[in-house]
Amino acid sequence: MKKGVSIIMGSKSDLPVMQKAENILKEFVVPCEIRALSAHRTPDLVREYAAGLGERGMGIVIAAAGMAAHLPGVVAGLTTAPVIGVPIESAGLGGLDALLSIVQMPPGIPVATVTVGGAKNAALLAVAMLAVADDQLADKLEEYRTTMRTAVQNADAELCKPAKGA
Amino acid sequence: MKKGVSIIMGSKSDLPVMQKAENILKEFVVPCEIRALSAHRTPDLVREYAAGLGERGMGIVIAAAGMAAHLPGVVAGLTTAPVIGVPIESAGLGGLDALLSIVQMPPGIPVATVTVGGAKNAALLAVAMLAVADDQLADKLEEYRTTMRTAVQNADAELCKPAKGA
Amino acid sequence: MKKGVSIIMGSKSDLPVMQKAENILKEFVVPCEIRALSAHRTPDLVREYAAGLGERGMGIVIAAAGMAAHLPGVVAGLTTAPVIGVPIESAGLGGLDALLSIVQMPPGIPVATVTVGGAKNAALLAVAMLAVADDQLADKLEEYRTTMRTAVQNADAELCKPAKGA
Amino acid sequence: MKKGVSIIMGSKSDLPVMQKAENILKEFVVPCEIRALSAHRTPDLVREYAAGLGERGMGIVIAAAGMAAHLPGVVAGLTTAPVIGVPIESAGLGGLDALLSIVQMPPGIPVATVTVGGAKNAALLAVAMLAVADDQLADKLEEYRTTMRTAVQNADAELCKPAKGA
Amino acid sequence: MKKGVSIIMGSKSDLPVMQKAENILKEFVVPCEIRALSAHRTPDLVREYAAGLGERGMGIVIAAAGMAAHLPGVVAGLTTAPVIGVPIESAGLGGLDALLSIVQMPPGIPVATVTVGGAKNAALLAVAMLAVADDQLADKLEEYRTTMRTAVQNADAELCKPAKGA
Amino acid sequence: MKKGVSIIMGSKSDLPVMQKAENILKEFVVPCEIRALSAHRTPDLVREYAAGLGERGMGIVIAAAGMAAHLPGVVAGLTTAPVIGVPIESAGLGGLDALLSIVQMPPGIPVATVTVGGAKNAALLAVAMLAVADDQLADKLEEYRTTMRTAVQNADAELCKPAKGA
Amino acid sequence: MKKGVSIIMGSKSDLPVMQKAENILKEFVVPCEIRALSAHRTPDLVREYAAGLGERGMGIVIAAAGMAAHLPGVVAGLTTAPVIGVPIESAGLGGLDALLSIVQMPPGIPVATVTVGGAKNAALLAVAMLAVADDQLADKLEEYRTTMRTAVQNADAELCKPAKGA
Amino acid sequence: MKKGVSIIMGSKSDLPVMQKAENILKEFVVPCEIRALSAHRTPDLVREYAAGLGERGMGIVIAAAGMAAHLPGVVAGLTTAPVIGVPIESAGLGGLDALLSIVQMPPGIPVATVTVGGAKNAALLAVAMLAVADDQLADKLEEYRTTMRTAVQNADAELCKPAKGA
Repeated sequence: MKKGVSIIMGSKSDLPVMQKAENILKEFVVPCEIRALSAHRTPDLVREYAAGLGERGMGIVIAAAGMAAHLPGVVAGLTTAPVIGVPIESAGLGGLDALLSIVQMPPGIPVATVTVGGAKNAALLAVAMLAVADDQLADKLEEYRTTMRTAVQNADAELCKPAKGA
Repeated sequence: MKKGVSIIMGSKSDLPVMQKAENILKEFVVPCEIRALSAHRTPDLVREYAAGLGERGMGIVIAAAGMAAHLPGVVAGLTTAPVIGVPIESAGLGGLDALLSIVQMPPGIPVATVTVGGAKNAALLAVAMLAVADDQLADKLEEYRTTMRTAVQNADAELCKPAKGA
Repeated sequence: MKKGVSIIMGSKSDLPVMQKAENILKEFVVPCEIRALSAHRTPDLVREYAAGLGERGMGIVIAAAGMAAHLPGVVAGLTTAPVIGVPIESAGLGGLDALLSIVQMPPGIPVATVTVGGAKNAALLAVAMLAVADDQLADKLEEYRTTMRTAVQNADAELCKPAKGA
Repeated sequence: MKKGVSIIMGSKSDLPVMQKAENILKEFVVPCEIRALSAHRTPDLVREYAAGLGERGMGIVIAAAGMAAHLPGVVAGLTTAPVIGVPIESAGLGGLDALLSIVQMPPGIPVATVTVGGAKNAALLAVAMLAVADDQLADKLEEYRTTMRTAVQNADAELCKPAKGA
Repeated sequence: MKKGVSIIMGSKSDLPVMQKAENILKEFVVPCEIRALSAHRTPDLVREYAAGLGERGMGIVIAAAGMAAHLPGVVAGLTTAPVIGVPIESAGLGGLDALLSIVQMPPGIPVATVTVGGAKNAALLAVAMLAVADDQLADKLEEYRTTMRTAVQNADAELCKPAKGA
Repeated sequence: MKKGVSIIMGSKSDLPVMQKAENILKEFVVPCEIRALSAHRTPDLVREYAAGLGERGMGIVIAAAGMAAHLPGVVAGLTTAPVIGVPIESAGLGGLDALLSIVQMPPGIPVATVTVGGAKNAALLAVAMLAVADDQLADKLEEYRTTMRTAVQNADAELCKPAKGA
Repeated sequence: MKKGVSIIMGSKSDLPVMQKAENILKEFVVPCEIRALSAHRTPDLVREYAAGLGERGMGIVIAAAGMAAHLPGVVAGLTTAPVIGVPIESAGLGGLDALLSIVQMPPGIPVATVTVGGAKNAALLAVAMLAVADDQLADKLEEYRTTMRTAVQNADAELCKPAKGA
Repeated sequence: MKKGVSIIMGSKSDLPVMQKAENILKEFVVPCEIRALSAHRTPDLVREYAAGLGERGMGIVIAAAGMAAHLPGVVAGLTTAPVIGVPIESAGLGGLDALLSIVQMPPGIPVATVTVGGAKNAALLAVAMLAVADDQLADKLEEYRTTMRTAVQNADAELCKPAKGA
C-alpha cells in the first residue's frame, strides 16, 4: 500500500496556508491527513500522533509552525520518517524566528526546511521523496514540471516583445 | 523543604557556560541538579525528567540550548514550573537562532528568556523567583546587589579622575 | 497575604496589548496593579514606583516597552523582585530593537523576557513564579493547561480527516 | 538495485564539511558519489551532472554551497529527484546569505534545506527519504537513534548530580 | 548597430516594477526586450535565452527576481555580457533574501546589484555602461542628471524658508 | 546673535516626518530653515548649502535621509558644525539600511544619529546642544521635561488602579 | 569657565575603547572626567553622577555600553545635557544589540548615537557641540580636519599610480 | 584610446583586498589607476578626482568602502561613468552596514554593487562593461571563463568517485 503524507500544523490558524499542501497532494493522488496539534500545549497528543504515523499509513510528515516553531523538530525527534518543516510568517519578525527555529536543528535530527510560507513546496518535496521509489509518481512529477514550464513559456510569449529603439 | 533549581542543557558541551549558573545557586545555598538531555535525541528522557521534577524537589528549571534551541520550550510544555531559557551562541548566526527559538514562544507556554550565554543571570533570576516567598533569600539577594554595587563603586573610584584641561 | 503582580508599561499606548496580562491575572485571582511610567521621561517616578512595590504588596513586575526598551531593565536594577519583560513591536524594526534592549541584560541583573507582544505569556509566567510556593495556584495552572489541551484537541478533531487518495 | 545519494558542492573547499555527509552514508551502506561543480562557472557540467543522475543510480542529491548559494536550487530545477541543500558559512554574514539563497525557493521547485553547515543532517535526511520505501534502512535509522539516545543518556549519567544545598 | 538591453524577470508578477526600467530605456532610445523566464522552472529556456542574447542584439542584461533570487546569477553564468540584478521585495523578509541571493556571487561571476526594487536604477546603470563607448549617450545621461538636479532645486526653492525665531 | 538649526532632507517626501523637528524648534524659539537637497542628485548644491551654513547663522544641522542615507554623512564632511542624522524608514528593510548608513561613520567625521524616524528627538538634541552655552534655553529644556513628566504622571494616575484579587 | 565632557562607561572593561575619546578631548584641551558606573547595578550612583554634572563643570556626556546598553539612555533621562552614546560590540550579536538599545530612544529623550565602538567620533562630536559657541574650538576643529585631509592626501599620493596597460 | 578603470578606496587599509581587482585588470591588459580618498575626510579631493576621470582616460570606477560606506555613492553622484561598489567587511556587523550603504541607492544614481569583499568580481564586471563595445575583450572574457571551467572540471575529476556501498 502507498504511504501517505501527514500534514500537521501548530495552530488551526495556519490552515489557509497549509491547504495549498493538501491540494498538491490530492493532485498527485497521494493519501494524506491534516492535523492541528501544539508541540507545547499538547505534547502528549503530539507523541501519540507521531507514534501512530506508521499505523495510519503515513510515511512522511509536513509540519508547519510560526514564532518559536518547535513542532517540526519535536515531531522529527519522535519519528524516523522524514519531516518537512514549513516556517509560518508572523507579525514583526517576518518569519525569521520560525525559519531559524525550524532549520537550525542540531546534528542527528534533521528537518527538511522549505520557504517561509512554502506549503506548496513542502507538498512537492514530499511527492519527490515518495517518487524516489515510485516511478509512476516520478513521471507525474515530470509532467507537473512540464506544465509549469509551459505556463512560464506562455506568459513569456505574451510578454515577449521585439527590441525597440534606434 | 526548600525547592531546588534544575539546570538542564541540550549538550554536555554547554557545561562550561552553565557551571556559572551552578556557582550562583551554590552561593545562595539553593539546592540544584545538573542534567544534559536533548529535546530531539532523547524526547522520552526529557519527558521523564520533567515528570520527576516535583519528586526530586525541583521547583524551577534553567534550560540552555543552542541553534534551533527547543529544549527550554519543550520542557515548558511538560511542566508548570517556571522555565528559564539560556540561548547558547553557536558559530555563524551569533546566537540569534537560539534566542529567537527560545523567546518567541506561542501564547500559553512562556519561557523566561535571559541574555545569550547568560547562565549567571538565569541563576539570579531563579533565586529571585524563589525569593518571592522566601524573605531570607530576598535579603541575600539584596546583599548580593550591595556587593555588586560596592565592586562597581570601587572600580569607579580607581578610574575616577578630576577634570583636566583648560 | 498573597503577593501581587505589578504591570507597568512605558507608554499608555501599550495598554491594549497589556490588558491581556491583566485578564490572565484576574482569571487566576492574582492581585495586580497597572501603571504607565517612562524610564526616561519620569525616572524619579519609576524609582518611587519600584521602592513602593513591597509596600503595595507587589512581588513580581511585568514591564512592557518598545524601541530602546529600557523600562524592564531599569526596574530590574531598582528591585530584587523578578522582572518579566515584554518587548512591544513598533514600526520598522519589527520589535527586534525592543527584544534585544530587554533580553541582553548584562551579568547581575536579569530580566525574564517573553515573546514580542507576549503579554499573556508574561502573566502566565508570573503565575508560574507565584505557584512555586503556592500549591493551589499550581493546581489552577494545571487546569489551565488542561483547558488549553482540550481546546487544541477539539480543534484537531474538527479538522482531522481520514487519509485520502489511492 | 538500491538508489544512491549524490553529494555535490559548489567548491572543493567545502569538502571538509561535506565529508561528514559521506561518512554517514557509508555508515548506512548507502551508495554515494562526491562531486564539486559550480552553478555559475560550470553551468553545462551541472546540467550534464543532473541529467546523468538516474543513469548513475543516484536517487537523491545533497548540494552544498556558500554565499549566493545557487547550486542546490539550480540542481533542483534540473531534476525531479529530491534535493537537500546545505548552506555553507562564509566570513561576514555568518551563513545567513547561503541559508536564504537556498531555503527561499519560489513555488514549484523545493529544496530541502538543513542547518547551516549541517552536512551530517543532510545525509541523515537522505537516509530517511530512502527509508520511506526500505524497511531495513528504517530499522537501521531506528538503531542509529537508539545509539544517539544511549550516548546522551551516558553523558547525562556522568554529569547528573544529586541536589546540593540546604 | 547599437547594442540593446534585455530585461528578464523571474515571474510576470514583477512586471509593474520592471516597466520602470523599460521606460528609462525608451527615454534614452536604447533598444530593449522584456522577457519572463524562471531559473528553476524553465532552466532550458533560460539557457536558450542567454545563448541568443548576441544574435538578438542584446549587450546587457537586467534580471529581476525575488526570494531565493537565482535568475541574475544563473544568467551571469551563461553569458559574458554584464548582468544587472534587481532584488524584488517579497512578504516577510523585506527583500533581504533576494538581495543576498543576488549580490553575494562567488568569485568569477559578478552580478551588478542595485537597490531592492530598483528597476529605474538598473536601467540607468545599463545606459551608463553603454555610454562608456557612446559619447552621445553619455551626453544624454548628463542632461538627465541636469533635469534631476533642476527638479530637486525647484522642490528645495519651494520649501526653502528664511530662518525664523529670535 | 543666536545660532540656528538647519533642517535638510534627502527628498521632499520626508517633509511630513521632519516637520515635527521644525515644530519643536519653533516651540523653543530657535531660528531654523528647512531645505530639501540630494547628496547624490545635487552634490554641488549640498556643498553650497554646507558652505553657507555659517553665513545663514546656522550652527547645527539636522539631516534626514532614507535607504543608502548618505546626506547626513556627506554634510558632516563639509562642515565642522554638529550634524544630527535622522534615518527615514522605507519599505522592505524597515529603516535598518538608513540607520546603518548614517550611524556607522568612519573615524574622524561623526554623525549624531537618533531614532529611526526620530525628527522630534533630533530637534530636542539640537536644542540641548545649543543649551550647553545658553542657560535660558537649558531652563526651557528643563521645563519641557517637567511638562512631559506631568503628562506621564497624569496618564498614569488615570490608569492606576488599586490591586485587585484575593 | 569652559564646560567639560564627562565620559562614563557601563563597565571598566570598556576602558581601552573609551580612552580614544579621552585622548581626543585632551588633544582639544577640553576638560574631561572618566567614570565607570552601571545603569543596572548602581542606579543610585548613576543618579548622583548625573545630578552632579553641572557642579563638576561637565556640559556634555559621552556614555558607552554594550549588550542591552541602557546607560546612555538612562543618563539622558537624568540630565538635559546632550548625551552621546557609544555602542560597544560584544560577542555574538556584533554590537547590533547595543546599537539598537542606544539609538532607538522614544520621543522626548534623544541620545546622539555614534558608530559601534566609535569612541573617537564621540569625542569629536562633543568637541563640535562645544564649538557651536566657541569660535576658537571651531578653528581647532577645522585644523584637525585639515590634518586628516593631509594625511589622506599623502597616503593617496604614495599609492597613486599612473594608468597601466595597453 | 581604450578607456581605463579607476580603483578608489575609502582607506589605504583596504589595499590588500583591492589589489585583487588590480590584478584582474592587469591580466586583461585594461589601463587602471589606484587611489585612496575619503568621501568624508576629503570631499574636495573626491570631487577633483571625479572631475578628472575623463581626462585621465578612466571610463569606469571601482569604489570600495566599509562601515557607512558612502564613497561609491558619492562618486556616482559626481560622474556619469558607471560606478562599481565593493562593500568592505569590518568588525561586528559583518559588512552588512557597508553592503546596505552601497546598494540601497535612491532612484537616479545607481551603484553596481558586488559581493562583500568582492574586489575580483568588481574587476571582472568592469571588464564585462568594457567588453560590451570591445569584441577582443569579450573574447578574452570567454577564455577566462573557459579557464575557470577547466579548473573546476579538474578539481571535480580529482574528487569524483564511483558510487560506493551495497
